[in-house]
Amino acid sequence: MESAFTVWCTGLPSSGKSQLAETLASAIGARGLQTEVINSGKMRKTPLGASLGFSRDDRDTNIQRHAFAANLLVRNGVVAIVSAVSPYADTRRAVRNELGAFAEVYVSTPKSACIDRDKDGAWARALRGEIRGFTGVDDPYEAPIEPDVDVDLSQLSLEAAVNRVLAALEHMNLLQPSGSVSSEDAGLLDPALRTT
Amino acid sequence: MESAFTVWCTGLPSSGKSQLAETLASAIGARGLQTEVINSGKMRKTPLGASLGFSRDDRDTNIQRHAFAANLLVRNGVVAIVSAVSPYADTRRAVRNELGAFAEVYVSTPKSACIDRDKDGAWARALRGEIRGFTGVDDPYEAPIEPDVDVDLSQLSLEAAVNRVLAALEHMNLLQPSGSVSSEDAGLLDPALRTT
Repeated sequence: MESAFTVWCTGLPSSGKSQLAETLASAIGARGLQTEVINSGKMRKTPLGASLGFSRDDRDTNIQRHAFAANLLVRNGVVAIVSAVSPYADTRRAVRNELGAFAEVYVSTPKSACIDRDKDGAWARALRGEIRGFTGVDDPYEAPIEPDVDVDLSQLSLEAAVNRVLAALEHMNLLQPSGSVSSEDAGLLDPALRTT
Repeated sequence: MESAFTVWCTGLPSSGKSQLAETLASAIGARGLQTEVINSGKMRKTPLGASLGFSRDDRDTNIQRHAFAANLLVRNGVVAIVSAVSPYADTRRAVRNELGAFAEVYVSTPKSACIDRDKDGAWARALRGEIRGFTGVDDPYEAPIEPDVDVDLSQLSLEAAVNRVLAALEHMNLLQPSGSVSSEDAGLLDPALRTT
């Protein structure tokens, strides 16, 4: 129960993945685990993503590099929380197989709500045809059919969404229930072990 | 003293960098620190390196990606030990500036000894002109002028080289001296604190 894992947040642009990832990282961190967010928007500004475009091949390479970073973290005991559109089901499946302890979070905020949430005007530009290869406009998004957990940020508050993800992680035995105590403490508190 | 750092091993192909890095990782691990080796030969087989060649630009991107991985580890408390030819002084300087707590280890095994040590026949093929852009043959290696520590594996045993690097890391206050005790233990052992 105590080892690290990957939480992979997939969804349309502006669905709220990054916000969810950051808030989730704080919540998991508050439970005493080390966390790191791997944000696809930020990754594209690093030497790992700077040369990549938005073709299927480049998108896949991008996702594989996120998986590489997640793997590096997880095998060193750090919970990796990835926030990336990751539009292709096959690629997400490959990443899940590669990474082991893994939860897929589908941020299912519908397209209309994503367009409303669009802060940097990317959806607007894509809809006017000024950006090509934009997921949800002229590039596909293959929605997960069986995600481990589904959160629609047009219906749920951020807090409610984070709580739903935490509950799913507990249900999957990736995360210890917050009400419970660590196994060491549990031993100390076990009535059978008390002498008085 | 307790936080993580990067050890960057630079040197010609077949100079013994990988062996040094692996043995050093075990030695640092034995002191209770978490370590991870980032090996340039292996990185070129991952999604981070697979598309890179050996042009100056590609070599620099390669090194920047090693630095990205090292940074990810170090900020999560893991000592990153990089083994990479990293032939360009400017690029190594940039990486050092980016990474903070950093030791440059120059594996200074001379070319003739590297050729003797050449296990996979790469030097031989490069010398016959069958490989282009091979560092030390038709591609430059800018030897560090002021490395933090210098080990020539044609002169030193692997054990002696590792001990020299450990001593340098202690001298730089990156690593606690192995003979010493942790600050907590030191308090307990302090004669001034003893009542008997």
